[in-house]
Amino acid sequence: MPESPIRKLMPYAEIAKKSGKTIHYLNIGQPDIETPKVALDAVKNNDLSILSYSPSQGFETYLEKLSAYYKKNQIPLHPDEILVTTGGSEALLFAMGCITDPGDEVIIPEPFYANYNGFATASGVRVRAVESKLENNFALPPIAEFEKLINPNTKAILICNPGNPTGYLYTKDEIEQLADLALKHDIFILADEVYREFAYDGAKHYSIMQVERLAEHAIMIDSVSKRYSMCGARIGCIASKNKELITNAMKFAQARLSPPTFAQIAAEAALDTDDAYFNEVISEYVERRNTLVEGLKSIKDVKVAVPKGAFYCTVELPVEDSEDFAKWLLSEYEVNGETIMVAPAAGFYSTPNTGINQIRIAYVLEKEIILKAIHILKLALQDYPN
Amino acid sequence: MPESPIRKLMPYAEIAKKSGKTIHYLNIGQPDIETPKVALDAVKNNDLSILSYSPSQGFETYLEKLSAYYKKNQIPLHPDEILVTTGGSEALLFAMGCITDPGDEVIIPEPFYANYNGFATASGVRVRAVESKLENNFALPPIAEFEKLINPNTKAILICNPGNPTGYLYTKDEIEQLADLALKHDIFILADEVYREFAYDGAKHYSIMQVERLAEHAIMIDSVSKRYSMCGARIGCIASKNKELITNAMKFAQARLSPPTFAQIAAEAALDTDDAYFNEVISEYVERRNTLVEGLKSIKDVKVAVPKGAFYCTVELPVEDSEDFAKWLLSEYEVNGETIMVAPAAGFYSTPNTGINQIRIAYVLEKEIILKAIHILKLALQDYPN
Ligand SMILES: Cc1ncc(COP(=O)(O)O)c(C=O)c1O
Ligand SMILES: Cc1ncc(COP(=O)(O)O)c(C=O)c1O
Repeated sequence: MPESPIRKLMPYAEIAKKSGKTIHYLNIGQPDIETPKVALDAVKNNDLSILSYSPSQGFETYLEKLSAYYKKNQIPLHPDEILVTTGGSEALLFAMGCITDPGDEVIIPEPFYANYNGFATASGVRVRAVESKLENNFALPPIAEFEKLINPNTKAILICNPGNPTGYLYTKDEIEQLADLALKHDIFILADEVYREFAYDGAKHYSIMQVERLAEHAIMIDSVSKRYSMCGARIGCIASKNKELITNAMKFAQARLSPPTFAQIAAEAALDTDDAYFNEVISEYVERRNTLVEGLKSIKDVKVAVPKGAFYCTVELPVEDSEDFAKWLLSEYEVNGETIMVAPAAGFYSTPNTGINQIRIAYVLEKEIILKAIHILKLALQDYPN
Repeated sequence: MPESPIRKLMPYAEIAKKSGKTIHYLNIGQPDIETPKVALDAVKNNDLSILSYSPSQGFETYLEKLSAYYKKNQIPLHPDEILVTTGGSEALLFAMGCITDPGDEVIIPEPFYANYNGFATASGVRVRAVESKLENNFALPPIAEFEKLINPNTKAILICNPGNPTGYLYTKDEIEQLADLALKHDIFILADEVYREFAYDGAKHYSIMQVERLAEHAIMIDSVSKRYSMCGARIGCIASKNKELITNAMKFAQARLSPPTFAQIAAEAALDTDDAYFNEVISEYVERRNTLVEGLKSIKDVKVAVPKGAFYCTVELPVEDSEDFAKWLLSEYEVNGETIMVAPAAGFYSTPNTGINQIRIAYVLEKEIILKAIHILKLALQDYPN
């Protein structure tokens, strides 16, 4: 089981904290946005006297409301094509378990969400990476690059849309190209769409579930963690029109009995969140992104992939080893008692020695802090001795 | 991934429901006992405005209070020897994942909790069973039977204490014998102790963690599901004094980010539950058990393993195929519009054709219903045509 790349920095963060420095955490996807009140209130006002197991698939009422939410988003899904999971994390684990046997392979454009490695390892699956490039804002690599890797052990292509850590939002055309490839080789497209709502600049998210001809080959991973800033709920889902897949996933679901009850109450109520909430949240993220990207561009020799979605930005720095730089920021550096924690990007690549001069910045903190962070980064790059 | 044995009965339960019959559910471990108010209130009174990820290991405050709870139960465990999981289920999955590679083996006395099969399959692990006998109340089989199965692929012996579906509570001597065997062959003892509190007739639960010399070879699985009748919370833990094991389990924990926040708030508060609550609950279960056992003994040709713990009873019936009988009870039979749902025991054995005339009854419903269930069972055995 591989270690999460950010964990390596933890001892350095401890040192920084002990020395009394203020750390601005731009390294993880934990937003500072408030959870919708309607969700929190539903839990406060629950009147359960016995906290029982829910059905393994999730509460029926929740499944029905979820189905309505998807329909509103042009995603046609019946309640029985959805299975509620303990976070998107569990949905990913179930998906890997369902479609692979030990020794099978899954192709993923890199850089990718590092925990995909963990779920692959847990299922004995080999990850094959296709590199996407910062120069192209991490757009989909040429289909031929994927096709080169396809062999009888290949079971799926896994994409994250919009992407963590890339911020890239796939176009309809890119999704269609992937669909054609999957149909040609009879493999699955596994689409992690947990950042669906976070699409900027008027771009519309195009879901894998909107590709009708792909029905039997499409699996969607979703989560309430980011959508409603309720990461601690631990509710997600796996969805597919492929009945065999859902039947299989149900066996995994039954083995672990049920998803958490209070969290499902919150997630169900969250579906009543006002559109105004999202409009506000999206504007907030856009403003943060603009502040971040503009700031980064003002630093000499820094290259930025402009994010079109999610709330991450992958950045190339004029350093040799961004992990060393990130450690140094924590353990050695400060500006007026403050420093920043960023994620070295090498952990998001599975090809060795790739992305080693890149970092990921999560713009989950408010604009003032982002401005401060850019100031610290700019000075740090001047002062960094290596 | 194997199907849960009870699921096979679901379509028959649907038929029974549609025909308007009342079903008494004695087939699952979902108690009708109220969750401690202190736990429910803690969730109602929470004042979170952002429902964030908790630490992957669980909240520090909870780990500390858990450690104190274990010490009170003669189980010496530091907070950093415990990792909070999403139910005992996830703890079992992590444990299997940590100590085995695909192709490895785990020995389990049968009958055993059927979902062990699911977690084993998910980790590519082969289950080897040693049969325990109803005639001995499912006491530990002779150690020689375990030893016969041990080979270089054997990584652990998994026990459930007290047992589901056996109700058997291992004696200190039995635990010590297992410990000696584990040390001799350098394998783990994985002890599922989720029913720890449910030990009857003055017997004291002896935990695997009390065997000092086993420290590096003992892994404990625990859960709040049954202890506080809060199955829907989804909080458990894995605990061990073996640092490498916990470090490994942390990698699985980090991949799935964190256990549910609301549920941890409930579980932490539940540790303040009055002793009076447990005394009452235990008396209630003892009374139910006595009612059930006495009633079953009054039925001709029925054999009962008298449970010393947990809330299950495995029973031999004068039928050839208890699965057929259980289906018939649902689809064909009724007494004044009522019938019962029981779990055919074959699903708790991994050896084919074993336990096929046994059922498991969960005494999770009140005494009056248990009396009614016995009445129905008695008549049904007379009327059953096969
Ligand atoms: C791309 C992606 N997928 C899945 C997840 C899992 O999130 P959760 O388990 O909280 O739903 C995350 C969390 O950061 C993520 O970034
Ligand atoms: C023996 C045993 N272990 C583990 C579990 C898992 O319970 P949970 O995941 O709710 O903690 C159960 C549930 O019935 C059980 O009977």
